[in-house]
Amino acid sequence: MWKHVLIGALCGAVLLTAGILLGHYGIQGGAAAPAWVEDVGRDVDEGLIKEFLSQVDNVQIQEFLRELSKAPHMATTPGDEKTAQYVLQRWQDAEEGLDKAWREEYKVYLSFPDPENPNKVTVVNASDAVLYAVREKEKSYTPDQDHPEVVQPYAAYSPPGHAKGKLVYANLGKPSDYLLLNKTLDLRGTIAITRYGGAGRAPKAINAAPYGVVGVLVYTDPGDINDGLMSDVNETYPYSWYLPPSGVERGSFKTHFGDPLTPYLAAKEDTYRIPPANITGVPPIPTQPIGFEDAYALICELGGDAAPTDWQGGFNCTYNFGGPGFKPGSQFDNSDVKLDIYNQGELRNSANVMGVIRGSVEPDRYVIYGNHRDSWVHGAIDPSSGTSVMLEITRVLGRMLKQGKWRPRRSIIFGSWGAEEFGLIGSAEYTEQYYARLSERTVAYINVDISVFANATLRASGMPSVQNVIFTAAKQVDAPGRGSTSVYQNWIRYTNRTSPAHGIIPSVGYLSGAGSDYAAFVHYLGIASMDLSYTYDRTKTRARIYPAYHTAYDTFDYASRFIDPGFVSHQAVARTAGNVLLRLADSLVLPLNCSDYAESLESYLSEALDLFQLILTNQKISMEPLKKAVAKFRSAATALDQLIQSLDRANETPLKVRRINDQLMLLDRAFLDPLAFPDKYGYRHVIWASSSTVLPTFPGLSDAVLKANSSTLPGDWEQAHKQLSILSQAIEGAAHTLGDVV
Amino acid sequence: MWKHVLIGALCGAVLLTAGILLGHYGIQGGAAAPAWVEDVGRDVDEGLIKEFLSQVDNVQIQEFLRELSKAPHMATTPGDEKTAQYVLQRWQDAEEGLDKAWREEYKVYLSFPDPENPNKVTVVNASDAVLYAVREKEKSYTPDQDHPEVVQPYAAYSPPGHAKGKLVYANLGKPSDYLLLNKTLDLRGTIAITRYGGAGRAPKAINAAPYGVVGVLVYTDPGDINDGLMSDVNETYPYSWYLPPSGVERGSFKTHFGDPLTPYLAAKEDTYRIPPANITGVPPIPTQPIGFEDAYALICELGGDAAPTDWQGGFNCTYNFGGPGFKPGSQFDNSDVKLDIYNQGELRNSANVMGVIRGSVEPDRYVIYGNHRDSWVHGAIDPSSGTSVMLEITRVLGRMLKQGKWRPRRSIIFGSWGAEEFGLIGSAEYTEQYYARLSERTVAYINVDISVFANATLRASGMPSVQNVIFTAAKQVDAPGRGSTSVYQNWIRYTNRTSPAHGIIPSVGYLSGAGSDYAAFVHYLGIASMDLSYTYDRTKTRARIYPAYHTAYDTFDYASRFIDPGFVSHQAVARTAGNVLLRLADSLVLPLNCSDYAESLESYLSEALDLFQLILTNQKISMEPLKKAVAKFRSAATALDQLIQSLDRANETPLKVRRINDQLMLLDRAFLDPLAFPDKYGYRHVIWASSSTVLPTFPGLSDAVLKANSSTLPGDWEQAHKQLSILSQAIEGAAHTLGDVV
Repeated sequence: MWKHVLIGALCGAVLLTAGILLGHYGIQGGAAAPAWVEDVGRDVDEGLIKEFLSQVDNVQIQEFLRELSKAPHMATTPGDEKTAQYVLQRWQDAEEGLDKAWREEYKVYLSFPDPENPNKVTVVNASDAVLYAVREKEKSYTPDQDHPEVVQPYAAYSPPGHAKGKLVYANLGKPSDYLLLNKTLDLRGTIAITRYGGAGRAPKAINAAPYGVVGVLVYTDPGDINDGLMSDVNETYPYSWYLPPSGVERGSFKTHFGDPLTPYLAAKEDTYRIPPANITGVPPIPTQPIGFEDAYALICELGGDAAPTDWQGGFNCTYNFGGPGFKPGSQFDNSDVKLDIYNQGELRNSANVMGVIRGSVEPDRYVIYGNHRDSWVHGAIDPSSGTSVMLEITRVLGRMLKQGKWRPRRSIIFGSWGAEEFGLIGSAEYTEQYYARLSERTVAYINVDISVFANATLRASGMPSVQNVIFTAAKQVDAPGRGSTSVYQNWIRYTNRTSPAHGIIPSVGYLSGAGSDYAAFVHYLGIASMDLSYTYDRTKTRARIYPAYHTAYDTFDYASRFIDPGFVSHQAVARTAGNVLLRLADSLVLPLNCSDYAESLESYLSEALDLFQLILTNQKISMEPLKKAVAKFRSAATALDQLIQSLDRANETPLKVRRINDQLMLLDRAFLDPLAFPDKYGYRHVIWASSSTVLPTFPGLSDAVLKANSSTLPGDWEQAHKQLSILSQAIEGAAHTLGDVV
Repeated sequence: MWKHVLIGALCGAVLLTAGILLGHYGIQGGAAAPAWVEDVGRDVDEGLIKEFLSQVDNVQIQEFLRELSKAPHMATTPGDEKTAQYVLQRWQDAEEGLDKAWREEYKVYLSFPDPENPNKVTVVNASDAVLYAVREKEKSYTPDQDHPEVVQPYAAYSPPGHAKGKLVYANLGKPSDYLLLNKTLDLRGTIAITRYGGAGRAPKAINAAPYGVVGVLVYTDPGDINDGLMSDVNETYPYSWYLPPSGVERGSFKTHFGDPLTPYLAAKEDTYRIPPANITGVPPIPTQPIGFEDAYALICELGGDAAPTDWQGGFNCTYNFGGPGFKPGSQFDNSDVKLDIYNQGELRNSANVMGVIRGSVEPDRYVIYGNHRDSWVHGAIDPSSGTSVMLEITRVLGRMLKQGKWRPRRSIIFGSWGAEEFGLIGSAEYTEQYYARLSERTVAYINVDISVFANATLRASGMPSVQNVIFTAAKQVDAPGRGSTSVYQNWIRYTNRTSPAHGIIPSVGYLSGAGSDYAAFVHYLGIASMDLSYTYDRTKTRARIYPAYHTAYDTFDYASRFIDPGFVSHQAVARTAGNVLLRLADSLVLPLNCSDYAESLESYLSEALDLFQLILTNQKISMEPLKKAVAKFRSAATALDQLIQSLDRANETPLKVRRINDQLMLLDRAFLDPLAFPDKYGYRHVIWASSSTVLPTFPGLSDAVLKANSSTLPGDWEQAHKQLSILSQAIEGAAHTLGDVV
């Protein structure tokens, strides 16, 4: 019997083995799947996102900010070098660092005042005696203002020179302001004083020069920044967030982004440089910013007619045009204002600090997250609030990485840009140096510059395609100080719009200007980009920006007492931006929504038709190609969305997913036309380029039509027609990339 | 006992089943591989290539050519329409067609003579009596020349007008020719007669106008085209391939490629068009081509000094400069030459015919194969020899496709371009309309225009990266009439060079000009491109091109009797080009070689250093960035090649292969700089752009250095430095894309 049992057992073993082999190798389609099959199909891990959100720590952010803002760190100064070393050290940390981190150096042309020879603004009488001298330094309230590295307020890239003339008040320094002023006064030989706001910095001087104005002053009006408050006895910092009377906004008075001497070329040692005299988009005449304490002393003494109501500011006097010059009976009667500017251009080495986490499945796809590192003075808010958020995100991700808990599907690149304050220089040089590889591989760019302007609500701007991933992320983050309300729910209360597709949703702005380091990514590279921050409750302040902006009062003390006590808004931004980053890096199908892009194009089209169709038809220019192009885009977007919806994600071939992701990633690239705007340096994106108007429609078309409509040159209508063709072809080209691939 | 057997069998069945289940599901890593795993890893099928080669049929090619060349098919004429329909019908054939085929229409600006008012060239005396009239039509030798659609010889885009003046002989019409001539003669008010060759067509007139020349004649010298033979009694066609005395080369006298009214825009109905008067790069003065029979009558009567030796041509008389005008004693003494040109520009609808085979694994990757369809007259060689080859390739591939034997990994796009003869118009408009999608997805472009110039050997031009796949293909094809010698072995005997990496190999030329429809793909889109044909034994003829080029003698009779009897050279080109096409479409790893690109860059660098380093150093311009960039490129190329060599192709993840393929595909894109050559329309590729010299080095750098070196303007050295920086940055950018992805 044991023999039977033995034979049975043996037969059984043989049959079992045969079965195993048969099952393993013999079943059709049952060949063993290679190990990578599971990897390539993996989607974003919601558990990991929860873990990330829970680990983002407000106290860590506070301590990063304390470290980063302990000294002034203007670009290329010793303070800047220390922050560069600090960021590099954090990113190279063995337990909380990235895969690798390094510096990228550029030799860039910056502009500084002369510490030995400070810029002076004075009122002088006919015999050149000084009747009044503008402060050369902001008043100290905390030891921060006494730091030896605090730079004198100045207008970077203003030429040096000595200008003297009668003072006039030119409102915001817009073209229309000088036009109006010139109707009343002979502006030749005058000095114009202008308020910050309304126009860019450099245009205040560029617009003035053609009228013969010889110098420009700029100041921050308490009506624009302080909700009218002016006294440093108890109203302004250190008693509140408002700007003290001597506070001066510094800034770059340069229009174009990037190093001014190396247009479209990375500023390396031996790179060709244009002569500094050929730099365009900078003040042609000496220009200097001053505080409102001094502006008050000058403006309230001005003679001439009263300026129009909308030129009046927050001072308790009438703003007159100027006689030109001061009014009869004034202590300054018959006196001139004199500018002695000693700014000098210098070639300096500026560093970006770069860090990378290598992607596991698609290392050749990049999500880039960046912020600048350089400030004007201590820069606690601008930019270190953003740098602190970035360091907290990299700390949490770095820890998960080093612990082996996570590696993103795609590569993540972090950029701590240099010399942003001088005109987005570090980020622009980076995009010039790595143009091809960034253009081919970058999925999205996330910019968090000033992370907290104020602690009321999230603010977001970006391409329409990134709206949805921001919403998804914001829904998962608690709004600070709002109980269980999410950042999304809080946001929609402050600012919203009705979308045809989604109903009421938070308003996401467009990145049409060059306000921060996203500019080169949007306009030069055509990469889906966004800019995130926490911002104001507009029912509580009409300040143009947080009042200490670009002054010596933008300190850790200011940030922690008045902007974000407890750093919980910083934390909310870090959580939201980090969540967006993780979703872009880890999602199987990229969370970029092309139908939302179609909605924006349709809205722009509708505005363009309302505004221009009649005028263009009168010129025998048809808008049909534009209508057809937008319709084609919509239909291609709908089809691609349906394809994405219908994907069997778990079993889809990785090359099909990659194809769809490439279509989404490259969408904005199709809108680039390097020859579309020969007069707008760096602007190539035909949908989001800067415009001379604020009309919510296509910038090139609207600028050209409005120009032609106010011109008598027939060639201007040709330019309008050309812009229409460029635009229609770009949108149709984008539709071609979204549609079926053959 | 049966009970034991039964129990044993049952147990055995259970164990077997358990084993099968265990084997199928239970073994770690043994999950069933999805069906697509095998597909994505499949490489090119050598058996299928053999089948393709064996099916390419010379008689089929002959019959395609007979059909295509049976009538004149100048762009947009009824004959062109018939060929468009024919190609479309072939590509839509149910048994031998492609997946789909369609027409793409453009409204383009062409230039035609007036059939009611033919252009005239005459010799007139002082009282305007006609002493001699140039033929208006080529002499008939076969019925083909009598076809009513044979267009009068003319210079397309020459302006209409009446020019009269003393004749001068201006050699090839180069700048140096007019410079020399102007030292001897006052050229104001003269008519210049020039030989074809040496310079482009339009430049012969563009170079003349600044000297006051009022009209230009162009003719084909028998010394340049007929190896000196001139008689139509027994020497020229129909007795040989040589050009009959009355034969005239027609051509486009337009420098820039694409529709002249819509630069950078696809020429659709409502597209913005520049005014025709603003077209640049065309003759500013009336211009007309004539045959050498007439040129002989004019040139041999010219007065003045004898022209230099290298200006002398094939006529049995001395070529004099002209008095200006004819020599004393001549029947034409004191007479003028008069041009009455009636050419008119017209907007015409021109069609590309497009066909597609959808890729199975990577449909979003394109291999494009194209040739133009339009001719000047019957165009048997130019372009129908190429179109016949294309139709034979699509016939064989279409059959394999429809039989279910094959579907390519990548998509294949075939383009039968319209209006090439007027300046590569159809292909250029196509690249403008589909810029984004072509730029993102095109792996390579294969151009076969004139497929057989002569029957001696293969000729190939292309980016260095395509050299290797052409070699591989050419080794598998028998050279016609050479026994078992391969096309490759035959080729290397005719033209070869020594490569540092490969030893002696056939010479592959560069695509630096705009000679055929590859121009927009190379220069505007930066796509790896090649141009293939069979060509001359240069020991047997020094003809500038096959003699019937652009004349009424380029007929089926001419092709089948003198160019390729038996159509075996056509067959060899079809096999070689089709083999290249299959390899590009089906290979797992793209057969594009980046190390061969490095070799070319090193050769260009070495030439640039020899020529320019000393001069540039004297100007304090360092060539180090260029050296470093080329070294970086080489090292990145070597590393990528090693990575490719080390791939475990059968088991590699498809996203890694895709990544490498993207690096190879996009290599040339990195060399594009749309602002590098503001004066060269359409040229953006900094390595292969056209140059004003024939130096084997970087075109932008060499043009700029040579200009600065012969100039006294300091700004010219700045331009040279700028070109050096543009070039270095582009090469370094390309190296960044080849290197490790993060």
